[in-house]
Amino acid sequence: MTIQAPVPPAESLRAFFRNHASGVAIVTGVNAASEPIGFTATSLTSLGTNPPLVSFNVAQGASFYQSLCEGAHVNLHSLTVENLDLAARLAGPREGRFSVADWTSDANGVPLFSAVSAILNCRILKVVEIEKNSVVIAEAISGQLGQAGEPLIYHSRAFKAGGQTLRQNG
Amino acid sequence: MTIQAPVPPAESLRAFFRNHASGVAIVTGVNAASEPIGFTATSLTSLGTNPPLVSFNVAQGASFYQSLCEGAHVNLHSLTVENLDLAARLAGPREGRFSVADWTSDANGVPLFSAVSAILNCRILKVVEIEKNSVVIAEAISGQLGQAGEPLIYHSRAFKAGGQTLRQNG
Repeated sequence: MTIQAPVPPAESLRAFFRNHASGVAIVTGVNAASEPIGFTATSLTSLGTNPPLVSFNVAQGASFYQSLCEGAHVNLHSLTVENLDLAARLAGPREGRFSVADWTSDANGVPLFSAVSAILNCRILKVVEIEKNSVVIAEAISGQLGQAGEPLIYHSRAFKAGGQTLRQNG
Repeated sequence: MTIQAPVPPAESLRAFFRNHASGVAIVTGVNAASEPIGFTATSLTSLGTNPPLVSFNVAQGASFYQSLCEGAHVNLHSLTVENLDLAARLAGPREGRFSVADWTSDANGVPLFSAVSAILNCRILKVVEIEKNSVVIAEAISGQLGQAGEPLIYHSRAFKAGGQTLRQNG
């Protein structure tokens, strides 16, 4: 490993996460005006199955943050390479995010994108505020499986395909 | 999307996260007996750069959990496909995790695996307990970049390689 000159911690963090891959998900909800809201998330992770909990991060400056409250319903969508355009759209300008007719509303009015590999219907349990961000803890209520496929990943400022299997783990 | 018969939420969550990819990291620390501790983590995510914060999850049943406390130093390592054996070893039996001489101790006594793509040296800011898990919030202090490479990902119960670039995003 090359020893580098010291850099500010924020720059070290940015460099670290450019190197670190993540899965790509879409989180959807509804705002106070009953409008669909959503964004492309790379922070989605499991918090165990008993009870079945997940967490994801939302910047306090994000429009989605205004609609976060305990008990609110959100839908999580795991994306494959087939969902590249969807991932880019939900990471783009807010006004265009629901401009394509590839979604429906579920019984709670929360947008559902069906052409994904898996959906998890959740209810927000807790919003933990950490400086300018928030860690959202949500409980899984139900879920649906779609078409399995190569997972979409985010790495080094690019959307990539999950590649070859190196080792099965159980 | 195929409509499935209802399944318990815990089963839905398991199915969702089998489909969802994640980057693979190693988290290291020291326990009360000054012994090296560490584990392979797939929950590592950024919580913003100002201040530079990260989060990762630790089950309260895990041995690592006993050593988590505010102010404790931890090192985060982002892995590439070259680190497959390391990832499997730090996910395996505890007694074997530091049995290979591929690590050193940093100034705080925390293990450093140098043959990785990036390291982030952190201090634990807060441990948020959520049912049987904990979300660990840590502040980045410094970092080092190593050899860039294809990222190691975890998906569908297997270690995989990050694949081809589909779209650059800035």
